[in-house]
Amino acid sequence: MSERVFNFSAGPSTLPLEVLEEAAREMTNYKGTGMSVMEMSHRGKPYIAIFEETKADLKRILNVPDTHEILFMPGGATLQFSAIPMNLIGKSGKADYAVTGNFSNVAMKEAKRYGEINIACTSEDKNHTYIPAQKDINLSKDASYFHYCSNNTIYGTEWKYVPETGNVPLVCDMSSNIMSMPVDVSKYGIIYAGVQKNMAPAGAAVVVIRKDLAGNEHPLTPKLMNYGVMIDSDSMQNTPPCYTIYMLGLVLKWIDRQGGLTAMAKLKAERSKYLYDVLDSSKMFAGCAEKEARSDMNVTFRTKSEELDALFIKEAKSAGFDTLKGHRAVGGMRASIYNAMPIEGTKKLAAFMREFEARNL
Amino acid sequence: MSERVFNFSAGPSTLPLEVLEEAAREMTNYKGTGMSVMEMSHRGKPYIAIFEETKADLKRILNVPDTHEILFMPGGATLQFSAIPMNLIGKSGKADYAVTGNFSNVAMKEAKRYGEINIACTSEDKNHTYIPAQKDINLSKDASYFHYCSNNTIYGTEWKYVPETGNVPLVCDMSSNIMSMPVDVSKYGIIYAGVQKNMAPAGAAVVVIRKDLAGNEHPLTPKLMNYGVMIDSDSMQNTPPCYTIYMLGLVLKWIDRQGGLTAMAKLKAERSKYLYDVLDSSKMFAGCAEKEARSDMNVTFRTKSEELDALFIKEAKSAGFDTLKGHRAVGGMRASIYNAMPIEGTKKLAAFMREFEARNL
Repeated sequence: MSERVFNFSAGPSTLPLEVLEEAAREMTNYKGTGMSVMEMSHRGKPYIAIFEETKADLKRILNVPDTHEILFMPGGATLQFSAIPMNLIGKSGKADYAVTGNFSNVAMKEAKRYGEINIACTSEDKNHTYIPAQKDINLSKDASYFHYCSNNTIYGTEWKYVPETGNVPLVCDMSSNIMSMPVDVSKYGIIYAGVQKNMAPAGAAVVVIRKDLAGNEHPLTPKLMNYGVMIDSDSMQNTPPCYTIYMLGLVLKWIDRQGGLTAMAKLKAERSKYLYDVLDSSKMFAGCAEKEARSDMNVTFRTKSEELDALFIKEAKSAGFDTLKGHRAVGGMRASIYNAMPIEGTKKLAAFMREFEARNL
Repeated sequence: MSERVFNFSAGPSTLPLEVLEEAAREMTNYKGTGMSVMEMSHRGKPYIAIFEETKADLKRILNVPDTHEILFMPGGATLQFSAIPMNLIGKSGKADYAVTGNFSNVAMKEAKRYGEINIACTSEDKNHTYIPAQKDINLSKDASYFHYCSNNTIYGTEWKYVPETGNVPLVCDMSSNIMSMPVDVSKYGIIYAGVQKNMAPAGAAVVVIRKDLAGNEHPLTPKLMNYGVMIDSDSMQNTPPCYTIYMLGLVLKWIDRQGGLTAMAKLKAERSKYLYDVLDSSKMFAGCAEKEARSDMNVTFRTKSEELDALFIKEAKSAGFDTLKGHRAVGGMRASIYNAMPIEGTKKLAAFMREFEARNL
C-alpha cells in the first residue's frame, strides 16, 4: 500500500485501492465457485448474477429511468463515434456537433462519413480553452441528434450546463466525467462513456440509450454496433467483456460506500479546489483553461517555460506524483483527478506545487 | 488452490492457475510502478513495454511472418464477422463461406449484408457432426476470400486439414483452437480469434492479417474496424483493452514455459485421449461428432437419455467437474479442454465417467 503512487493518468486511470485488493483476493476463486470471474461462462448463473447486479447498481446510482436502457458495448467511446451516426443519423441524414476538444472533433469527423454534419459550435478559435455559451450554439432545424462531449480530457474544460436542443435528441460523450455527479438522464437521448476513466479498466463502453431511438440503423451497421440488437440481447449478443463489467460492479459498490453521486460531486469539487487554489494564487503556475470552463476532472496548467515544466514533471514523479505530463496538443501539465483519486492526492500535489514554486521562482 | 474446480466452460474458460496468481500478486503494484496495469496510461512506457513484449511473444510463438501484422481489436470474434466483409469483400463483391457450425453460420449470415455469399460447403445435413472433405468444397471463381472456422466449439468438430483455395485468401476463425498447435500462418490471409478460450479473459480479438489485404474497405467501415487504420496505428487507434492484452502476455509466457505450440499440440492430444478412450469403449456414453472430425478442444458426448445426462452433469459438478452441460443445439455434455486445462482434469473426468457408468448402467 505504501508503495502506491498518486497516479494522475488521463485514462486508463487510478482505481480505488480497495477495489483492486478485492479483485486480487477473488482472482483464483470467486466466492467459492472455484474459478476466477475471468474463467466463467457468461451464460452461467454466477456470472449472470454479477452482470445483473452491476446493471441494476448502475441504473440505481445513475438514476436511469425506465425509458432508457443500459448497454455494455465493446471498443470504448471510439467505436460509439461510428455507432451513433450509423444508428441515428438516418432520420434526417443530418446531425449537429459541438466541437470543444479532441474527442468531440474526432467524433465529428467520423460522423461526417455517415451524413451531413453541422458544427453547431466550436472553441477551436482559442485552442479549446473555453466552452461556448448556449446563445452561441447554432442548431440546425432538422438534425437527427445533437452531439457534445461533456468534459474535454485533453484541454481540461467541462460543460457547466446541459445544452438546450428542443426536440433534437441530446447525445453526450461523458467518458471523462460520468459518475462524478448526479445527471438528469431523462434529458438525454444517449449518454455514453468509455469505462477507463471513472468506471473500470479499459475495454468497454457504457451506453445509456432512450429505447425509442433504436431501430433506425443504416443497413450496413455491424450487428454488435446495432443498438436495437444490443437492447434485445441485453448486451449479450456475443461474449461481453465480462471481467471489465465485474470490475465496474466493484467500482459501483465503492461509489455506494462513499455515498453515491452526490458524494462524488462533493469530493470532485473539493479535490480540484486544492489545485485551482494554487493556480489562482501562483506566480509560476497558470491554468490552461478559462476559469469559468475549468474541469474538475482534468486540471491543465503550465509554468512559463517548457524547461521548467519538464523539471516539475520529473521532480513530481520522484515525489510520487505520476503521469502529470500534459497532452502534446496543450503542453505543460495535466492532473487527471477522477473519482478514485484520493483527496490526499491533490492536497499533497498542491503542497508540492507551492514548495516547487518557492524553490524555483 | 485445493478449492479450484476443473472448469470445462466453452469460453470464457479456464486459465492457467499460475497466471491468475501472478495477476493477483501484481494487481495493486506492477513491478514497482506503484500502480496496477489496469490503471496505466496506454501511452506510458510501462504499458508500452507490456504491449510490445506481448506482441513480440505472440509473433514468435505463433511464428507470424513479416508479411503479416498482428492486431488487437475490440469486440471478440463477432465484431470480426462484420469487419472481414467490410474490409475484404469489395474486391469482387463475393465471398465463399464454409458452414460447419454455429459461429461459421453466424459469420456467413453477417457477411451476407455486405455482399454475395456462396456457401462453399456445409455440414448442416448431419447437424454439423462432420467436416466436409476438400473434394466437397465448391469454390467460386472470383471470391474475395474463403472463410471457415477451424474448430466448432458447440458441435465438437475440428478441421484436420487446411482447405486449399488457390489464390483466394484463406480467412480462418481460430477462436477455439488458436495456440493449441503450430500453424503455417503464411497460408492464411487472415487468422482471427476471440481471446476468451485459449488466450485471455474475454474482451478482445487477435487478428493476424496479411498486410496487402488491408486498404480496400467499404467507405462506411467504422474506423476501429478498418484493418488499414489499425495496422497504421499499431492497434492504438484508441485505448486498447489494456488489461486483456496484459493477461494474454502472461498466458504467452506460460505457453513458453510449457514448451511452445509443439508442446501444446502434444498436450492437446493427450488431454482429449483420456475422454475419447472412454467414449470409444463405453456402453453408456457416445460421442456426438463423427470420429474423424472430433475436436481435441471440445469433446461433445451424451448418454442414452436426457435424464441420465442431467444426473451425470449434476454429480460431476458435485465432484468438482464444472460447466459440463452441452449447448442446446446439441444437448448432452460438452467438455471444453483448452490449453489451460490440466491433463489431470481430463484424466480424472475420464475416471469419473467410468465410475458413473459402472454405477448407472
